[in-house]
Amino acid sequence: MRTRAAVALEAGKPLEVMEVNLEGPKEGEVLVEIKATGICHTDDFTRSGADPEGMFPAILGHEGAGVVLEVGPGVKMLKPGDHVIPLYTPECRECEYCLNPKTNLCQAIRTTQGKGVMPDGTSRFSMLDGTPILHYMGCSTFANHTVMPEIALAKVRPDAPFDKICYIGCGVTTGIGAVINTAKAEIGSRGIVFGLGGIGLNVIQGLRLAGADQIVGVDLNPAKVEMATRFGMTDFVNPSEVEGDLVAHLVELTGGGADYTFDATGNVQVMRTALEAAHKGWGESIIIGVAPAGAEISTRPFQLVTGRVWRGTAFGGARGRTDVPKIVDWYMDGKIEIDPMITHTLSLEDINKGFDLMHAGESIRAVVVY
Amino acid sequence: MRTRAAVALEAGKPLEVMEVNLEGPKEGEVLVEIKATGICHTDDFTRSGADPEGMFPAILGHEGAGVVLEVGPGVKMLKPGDHVIPLYTPECRECEYCLNPKTNLCQAIRTTQGKGVMPDGTSRFSMLDGTPILHYMGCSTFANHTVMPEIALAKVRPDAPFDKICYIGCGVTTGIGAVINTAKAEIGSRGIVFGLGGIGLNVIQGLRLAGADQIVGVDLNPAKVEMATRFGMTDFVNPSEVEGDLVAHLVELTGGGADYTFDATGNVQVMRTALEAAHKGWGESIIIGVAPAGAEISTRPFQLVTGRVWRGTAFGGARGRTDVPKIVDWYMDGKIEIDPMITHTLSLEDINKGFDLMHAGESIRAVVVY
Repeated sequence: MRTRAAVALEAGKPLEVMEVNLEGPKEGEVLVEIKATGICHTDDFTRSGADPEGMFPAILGHEGAGVVLEVGPGVKMLKPGDHVIPLYTPECRECEYCLNPKTNLCQAIRTTQGKGVMPDGTSRFSMLDGTPILHYMGCSTFANHTVMPEIALAKVRPDAPFDKICYIGCGVTTGIGAVINTAKAEIGSRGIVFGLGGIGLNVIQGLRLAGADQIVGVDLNPAKVEMATRFGMTDFVNPSEVEGDLVAHLVELTGGGADYTFDATGNVQVMRTALEAAHKGWGESIIIGVAPAGAEISTRPFQLVTGRVWRGTAFGGARGRTDVPKIVDWYMDGKIEIDPMITHTLSLEDINKGFDLMHAGESIRAVVVY
Repeated sequence: MRTRAAVALEAGKPLEVMEVNLEGPKEGEVLVEIKATGICHTDDFTRSGADPEGMFPAILGHEGAGVVLEVGPGVKMLKPGDHVIPLYTPECRECEYCLNPKTNLCQAIRTTQGKGVMPDGTSRFSMLDGTPILHYMGCSTFANHTVMPEIALAKVRPDAPFDKICYIGCGVTTGIGAVINTAKAEIGSRGIVFGLGGIGLNVIQGLRLAGADQIVGVDLNPAKVEMATRFGMTDFVNPSEVEGDLVAHLVELTGGGADYTFDATGNVQVMRTALEAAHKGWGESIIIGVAPAGAEISTRPFQLVTGRVWRGTAFGGARGRTDVPKIVDWYMDGKIEIDPMITHTLSLEDINKGFDLMHAGESIRAVVVY
């Protein structure tokens, strides 16, 4: 079949919207009509050429929602008409990782996914002249139709709006999951969130959902205060307005340091501040942000010997097929909010405007609706 | 009263054995006759002048065992004749830290202990001319008699030999506790231990006690193999004999990385290797060693984002009054071994020979018996 897609032809260039060929689903695969997709910083990281593992031409996009149109042989849990959210971290429920309750990093299709192809080693996408186009993060939600392995699709309730729940495919789950699954924050915790963008806001509402007593937001941009407060922030710190040492200020503000701190900036200096602002004895710091290639975190080992813990999280520690439907329920039940974060809705033709809005800091999330 | 002690008069000099004055116990304090004390690297770190927080003159030593001779007013749980192990990490059971199950770092007397004095701000030790001598780590076991707060003494069974259980006051508990309390290693775990000295050997027997399936020891000195094997090591790696990347070698040897890795060297480069040799998804690396002043650990944040956890441990995460008596029981019941690690026994007069043996790498533990 043919479908329309925004194709990243080469690094650093705007996406080009065009018709492409899409082969049908093979063994264990599913054809999905994408109804909406968010535009995430990770897409831009690859589009820009900064991602050392980026490959072109490719159809980017990994934060979508849609409907199953057709299933390939051997697909057991999905049927046409099912509403689904694509998962860039699949959940096969059979590999060594899925069977270890400590991790969500299913490895079943990692190698081929990293190469931009389906598990059989080939791509389903191609140019009209036959040139293959690579998949991206196993999702490629910047195409109106895509093919994905069944293990990389979460089945969700049919009454949830695509243009909102697509955000659960990455940002919402990453932020809330970092609190619920990775930190496992307890009722009454104190948290500090560095970076109040699309991930940081979801960390904040994750802390609120977990019953935190204090939720400190740290950002250089005071324009973030209103939205962050709406999502549960109790204290705002602008590092440019702190006299003296930021760590000391945060430790004092939180009565000795926070129980949990979260980096949602990708800046390795901020990651260090986040660790050192965690409480002596038991504070845990969780790295969410993706750092530039080659950047390193560092600290004195004394920080760890005196009880701080340094962790990271990917996709919020969520097992997508199991956890994503629950987060959709939380949204539909009003336990979490998404709507105010979807600041812009665009057509596929205007997708490059979504990247412009991101660069200008004007959007929290721009969503493309097909 | 007067007692004999090895006094560190100034940084970098040998200890001087001499008679000193010792005041009796004040409120909440206990007079202890030290029967035996180990000589630990931490004592040497301070004696040598490398410890930026070292103060002189002081009576060092923190790895002892002895008998209660007299108790001050308000002491409730101890009486003359009780056998005790001094605790450089006390357990008051009342402070914010003691009441938080995630930490063992009781803060009740931290400030005064750090200044080398008892909780009332004064020292019990003095020269015969009246010059005060500082306490060390709240213990000062290089004196035949010492005064300590009740909350810093673990009461232990009276049939356990002082010249062996003194080692439980630091090295044994630190190593075994890092496995049991900090890592919480499960049956069937794979572990890697960097540094096969007095701490590393106890990490190894901690892993054996916890039911680990694979216990890899890493050391540059092949002379360590025999003893480490006796304590449970299943594989030995000499980094100087590994061709290519040490991390890759260890990851292959452990089938993907170890569930738990332990640094018992204090070398920040080794700490990085230990982290990166932990298993993707769930491997945890625990820093035990004390790094030189100003040294920093570093790694790419990707190591944490893909599921590795970086922790530290102090006194093996043990709550001394609660846990140390249990470890004495484990020794007496044959669940752990100590005797082979006590390689030298000295008189107080020969205590400087103990430091010489340590420097020469000839001792695992030299113990002074009074």
